[in-house]
Amino acid sequence: MSFKIAVVGSGAIGTYYGARLALAGSDVRFLMRSDLAAARSNGIRLKLPDSELHLAHPQVYAASDEIGPCDLVIITLKTTANAELPRLVKPLIGAQTALLTLQNGLGSDEFLAQHFGAERVLGGLAFIACNRIAPAVVQCLQPGSVTLAEFGRPLSDRARHIAGLFEKAGVKCMPTDNLAEARWRKLFWNIPFNGLSIAAGGITTDRIVGDPALRAAARSLMEEVQGAAARLGHIIPNDFIDWQFKTTDPMGPYKPSSLIDFLEGRPVEVEAIWGEPLRRAQAAGAAVPQLALLYALLRSVTSLDPG
Amino acid sequence: MSFKIAVVGSGAIGTYYGARLALAGSDVRFLMRSDLAAARSNGIRLKLPDSELHLAHPQVYAASDEIGPCDLVIITLKTTANAELPRLVKPLIGAQTALLTLQNGLGSDEFLAQHFGAERVLGGLAFIACNRIAPAVVQCLQPGSVTLAEFGRPLSDRARHIAGLFEKAGVKCMPTDNLAEARWRKLFWNIPFNGLSIAAGGITTDRIVGDPALRAAARSLMEEVQGAAARLGHIIPNDFIDWQFKTTDPMGPYKPSSLIDFLEGRPVEVEAIWGEPLRRAQAAGAAVPQLALLYALLRSVTSLDPG
Repeated sequence: MSFKIAVVGSGAIGTYYGARLALAGSDVRFLMRSDLAAARSNGIRLKLPDSELHLAHPQVYAASDEIGPCDLVIITLKTTANAELPRLVKPLIGAQTALLTLQNGLGSDEFLAQHFGAERVLGGLAFIACNRIAPAVVQCLQPGSVTLAEFGRPLSDRARHIAGLFEKAGVKCMPTDNLAEARWRKLFWNIPFNGLSIAAGGITTDRIVGDPALRAAARSLMEEVQGAAARLGHIIPNDFIDWQFKTTDPMGPYKPSSLIDFLEGRPVEVEAIWGEPLRRAQAAGAAVPQLALLYALLRSVTSLDPG
Repeated sequence: MSFKIAVVGSGAIGTYYGARLALAGSDVRFLMRSDLAAARSNGIRLKLPDSELHLAHPQVYAASDEIGPCDLVIITLKTTANAELPRLVKPLIGAQTALLTLQNGLGSDEFLAQHFGAERVLGGLAFIACNRIAPAVVQCLQPGSVTLAEFGRPLSDRARHIAGLFEKAGVKCMPTDNLAEARWRKLFWNIPFNGLSIAAGGITTDRIVGDPALRAAARSLMEEVQGAAARLGHIIPNDFIDWQFKTTDPMGPYKPSSLIDFLEGRPVEVEAIWGEPLRRAQAAGAAVPQLALLYALLRSVTSLDPG
């Protein structure tokens, strides 16, 4: 019996993983809007660092009810569009449907659990550098890996099966038992670098790590994230902070995804990356004054008309 | 014997106070650059809330050595131009010359003391809303008051004499024995409101006090300033924080002076208002993480080419 997969949110990440899974033989249905016509006419193209993959005949759909119930729904929608998720996902739900959210920040796991039942939910983190460079064309600069976990439970056979599909499709997959900690670990980078790149005036990460005041601010924000995570039971050592700089220092003029959203006039995931972590940190009694300030500034800056 | 006064830095504030002193009979010499020709041809005009004053024949000069030694030098140059001060002030110095800096933030008192001797220096704070609306024309929306003090000493007869000249010229003058505390008190407003108005994307103060997250950030910054001031021996009660909001809430869409500088592409006084207070707070062992973050952001934002 074939394992039927839907991809909801066919931006760069959803298109990339969906196409790789389809090329490896999975039955993947893409829910598409802006790229639908291009994908139907020309298929999906993935430009990898040293090769190109072409899914000539992707199964693309304009509405979820044309897809119907699936075994797995991969959700890569921007969190700023989460209000649409219940409507988009409902027709895809069957008795055994699993929901895997690869969305940024905090809150989407719980949101899906609330709407569709916690037992369906898996969460994942996409460590990948890729951009949609044209309709149905994705350039992948750094394939990276996916971290995958059950929501609030240890790994299951289901999770291991999904991880196996990713691996078979050429996507490095690292299953973990602790989704909450994995999400906080990703925030060590996203909170300072996505945030400062916007709030400091639209600058790339090399400008942050290269300026003593901004570098110190990035480290100090990470220490707040570390303190908040600890209050929530995730003890993450100082080495992990050092490691963020070790990996960011050689990146050069890198634009975090939120900066790209901001510069292109798209909604920035302010609540998922800064707002929800801030609220959880404060509820747990952690002192996070810099995160509070950064959140206030980002909320303001991203809500103004560019100009 | 007449009391000879020079004004160095004939922007809105220097022009306003200098003209009022001259109109009241003081011998005031203006060192001017961009407004020199206009002031010579048309005099200096002050538009007050309910009247207009005209100084028909101001004594204006293009170079300090044409002015020569004075009894008092009033310094209203932007702190971002302080490197020019030694050269500009030197020809104005005689045996008894007093230097009164009405400049923003922290550092100018010490800078002048270092170059010309601490015994010459007085400091003041200009609480005034005024703008230069055309060459040699200043609009004063709110005349406010001047706080005036000796640098590192109690009030002297000299300070009282200068205060008397201001009062005679129609400028409310409040002498104080504690210049350092007066400067920290002004930072309670300038650090959050001048800073957030720029860092939150170029917004007026009503948007700061009207947004719960920014309002909380402003208060939290004031608490850091309060803590730093306390470490330096200035115990300023919580009432003073409440009072900042009481006076700001009814201001409407007010643009802090730093925001105007920023929007008009002029240098912003980042070091005087945020950098120097930050360094003194940290040297005194105060915890000021939000001030550090705000400083890093402002340094970056104000150093970028406007997009």
